[in-house]
Amino acid sequence: MNDQTPQSIDAALAEIRAALGPKGWLEDANDTLKYRTDWRGAPEGEALGVARPASTEETAAVVRAAAKAGICIVPQGGNTGLAIGSVPTEPRPTIVLSTDRLTAVRTLDPDNYAMVAEAGCIIQNMQAVAAEAGRLFPLSLASEGSSTVGGTLSTNAGGNNTIKYGNTREQILGIEAVLADGSVFDGLETLRKNNTGYDMKQLFIGAEGTLGIVTAAAFRLMPLPRVRETAMLAVPSPHEAQHLLTSAREMSGDTVLAFEIMPRASFDMALKFIDGIVDPLAEPSPWYVLLEMGTSSPLDDLRAKLEAIFAEAMEKGWVTDGVIAESEAQRRELWRIREEQAEAGKREGTPRIAGDVSVPVSRVADYLEQSQATMNAYLPGLFFNCFGHMGDGNIHYTARKPASVSEAEWEEKKPGLTKRMYETALALGGSISAEHGIGSEKLPYLEKYGSPSKIALMKSVKQALDPKNIMNPGKVIP
Amino acid sequence: MNDQTPQSIDAALAEIRAALGPKGWLEDANDTLKYRTDWRGAPEGEALGVARPASTEETAAVVRAAAKAGICIVPQGGNTGLAIGSVPTEPRPTIVLSTDRLTAVRTLDPDNYAMVAEAGCIIQNMQAVAAEAGRLFPLSLASEGSSTVGGTLSTNAGGNNTIKYGNTREQILGIEAVLADGSVFDGLETLRKNNTGYDMKQLFIGAEGTLGIVTAAAFRLMPLPRVRETAMLAVPSPHEAQHLLTSAREMSGDTVLAFEIMPRASFDMALKFIDGIVDPLAEPSPWYVLLEMGTSSPLDDLRAKLEAIFAEAMEKGWVTDGVIAESEAQRRELWRIREEQAEAGKREGTPRIAGDVSVPVSRVADYLEQSQATMNAYLPGLFFNCFGHMGDGNIHYTARKPASVSEAEWEEKKPGLTKRMYETALALGGSISAEHGIGSEKLPYLEKYGSPSKIALMKSVKQALDPKNIMNPGKVIP
Repeated sequence: MNDQTPQSIDAALAEIRAALGPKGWLEDANDTLKYRTDWRGAPEGEALGVARPASTEETAAVVRAAAKAGICIVPQGGNTGLAIGSVPTEPRPTIVLSTDRLTAVRTLDPDNYAMVAEAGCIIQNMQAVAAEAGRLFPLSLASEGSSTVGGTLSTNAGGNNTIKYGNTREQILGIEAVLADGSVFDGLETLRKNNTGYDMKQLFIGAEGTLGIVTAAAFRLMPLPRVRETAMLAVPSPHEAQHLLTSAREMSGDTVLAFEIMPRASFDMALKFIDGIVDPLAEPSPWYVLLEMGTSSPLDDLRAKLEAIFAEAMEKGWVTDGVIAESEAQRRELWRIREEQAEAGKREGTPRIAGDVSVPVSRVADYLEQSQATMNAYLPGLFFNCFGHMGDGNIHYTARKPASVSEAEWEEKKPGLTKRMYETALALGGSISAEHGIGSEKLPYLEKYGSPSKIALMKSVKQALDPKNIMNPGKVIP
Repeated sequence: MNDQTPQSIDAALAEIRAALGPKGWLEDANDTLKYRTDWRGAPEGEALGVARPASTEETAAVVRAAAKAGICIVPQGGNTGLAIGSVPTEPRPTIVLSTDRLTAVRTLDPDNYAMVAEAGCIIQNMQAVAAEAGRLFPLSLASEGSSTVGGTLSTNAGGNNTIKYGNTREQILGIEAVLADGSVFDGLETLRKNNTGYDMKQLFIGAEGTLGIVTAAAFRLMPLPRVRETAMLAVPSPHEAQHLLTSAREMSGDTVLAFEIMPRASFDMALKFIDGIVDPLAEPSPWYVLLEMGTSSPLDDLRAKLEAIFAEAMEKGWVTDGVIAESEAQRRELWRIREEQAEAGKREGTPRIAGDVSVPVSRVADYLEQSQATMNAYLPGLFFNCFGHMGDGNIHYTARKPASVSEAEWEEKKPGLTKRMYETALALGGSISAEHGIGSEKLPYLEKYGSPSKIALMKSVKQALDPKNIMNPGKVIP
């Protein structure tokens, strides 16, 4: 970096252009705009250009040239992140490295339940390719139509089925990555057991591109669920939902794929702002659980299991009403209420604070109660819509400005509300970012709330692997 | 290290003695012998003494004092490892740090399916404590009666149920560790989703104590299987076992807990050397599969599933005969054939080479065939007993000296046999150490066969976290 000059930068860019060919390099501001801009419309970042390597070798060539000249690299997958982690944010000479030409599925071995694919593969395509071979690609995300292998891995994305399959980390058997010096880490195994030294691939999972660029990954696959049963159940409060969850996991033989909680507010939002949404139950309920089970076995009577869980829960008063999907169309209708929350929230438009918090699964009910109480005491009349993956303790939190409160007062109170949202979670052993990562957006919160011992370790690993700080600077590391 | 003197070492030991009290420090050679000696009887190592801290604070005090004086620390759990990883092997001033007084179960939250326990807790006790709360502690190891939380975590132990639950790594939600400078990493969360920066705890899993001393860990629990079904099935060859495995995973609804393969040699060994072993089948078979399924659901008809799997496999010729355990006693009898292999092998006594290799699950049959062919071509007449966790691709390999071969020729041929055992696995995308780790024993093989890019990364992480190389030196890092 010390010897960075306009000449050395030009030389590096020339080298990169030569390595990538005309399809692999964009520098016109219009062409690069979408790569420099967060999809939620954050201010555009500056970049010397966008590299679109078509192979691991080309990726390595880009990094080698950039490293020599001290040019920063922002790796980018589907650019669907929620923490401004995949666009340039720093005032240093920077290129975006998009994985959108790294799209090969390299191998698929159904008997080994494993699949190796390049970083730019779209998650939805991964699901389809695996399903064709009779296997489940276990990640299921709201953004799966555009999010990629590399982005999902780099943020350790979670999603709807974490209760059953875990997060992205649990799916990863191997990684190939280009390091900050342009060398290649060749860790693409597809083994279930391999204890030959430190498991270095773990470092790249959830590192948001700050330690290297993942170019390919080996994923474990699972038996494909051939039967699903889905129900929308009315519950009096999250406390009863907690009992239902514990019972459902046991009684179902651990076939619960998803356990989503929603308040009535979620239903009201969806009914008001989304076309074609119908309330599946006759009477409104304060809270709802969307429960889905799945099995690969033709010998599993999931409907009987679901009905037994339902019957016990009715008897115990955990559930007051419910509907079981009788068709795939009805199943989709139930899921739409949950999946359209982001869209409904956008259309509603009232100023809000939002968070992606987690707590131990057993503390979700306490967390919702305590956080709303303390926030309402600070600013009465808030409109809460806190829903999410109760089965893994992850709540997508929103609190909206009351109509009676002025914009000015709202702006003044927002930090205090956010503080209460986060600190209530932390007091229960929770986290300020469950599945969205840190990016640049949540850096101040990590700085404020992160464990100093963990941050010190992060810094020493970053220093060891990327001493020039050229890999996605300004992200993740306080 | 440069200013290490007899005086500085004495001062450090005095500080350690003072921090630990009389119960916490052993230095008489007889008292320390068992801590300095590998359980398989490797030559005893040298140690200034054995520290037995009773808390994280005491552990940190020991490390601070040792670090100041450049004294090396060998962390030790149950000392049941299989790679000489937990005893002193280097000619530098060294203490053993035993976790045998760190035995508290700190918390157990059944509704969060999580349990926090200190490093010295015995795995069998963890299973019992979890079961009392109606939960499964998912690790099951041959050495579970003496292996510990810390040792299991530091070697990322696998065991019998990896096909269903994964290795130790997949069970770990949080870690508390004392680092090489005596500071404490406080990462004891019990969350399912937490993406706030690098997941630093991953570094300590499988690091065999070379990056710090794990003092406590948070484990995920699972629904407790209340019904198990176990069968011993005769299969013509590992190729048919492969078909059976794929079918069983799907047809059972992913309730396969264990899928162990054994050749007839395993049966012969057990029948000859172990009391009370009975061949459960009328006719001998070249190969066997021990299949176990389990479910937490009272609504799951596992017997019907097992019978359907069995019937299909008989029809297709994958299985030629079999027996289903009709009682817990019978189940234990079937398992004993598998579990007594280590003991039978010890009693048999013939010189042998042994390995703990893994390959992709789909390549186990090929691996057994190819490795035995190439080894037999190199030295005809070998007696093979290669059994293990086929469900996760992990084979415990032994090849014994033919009676016709002299001791001298055997010694000469051993390296060539080991080379063939490992290189055949590597050619199939396998590993030279599936679940036993590297320790000091397998270091030459990691050096020879390890990926240079991975070893380089390992070294930079080791350098960053333990620059003085005082944490278990001579282990894991080539």
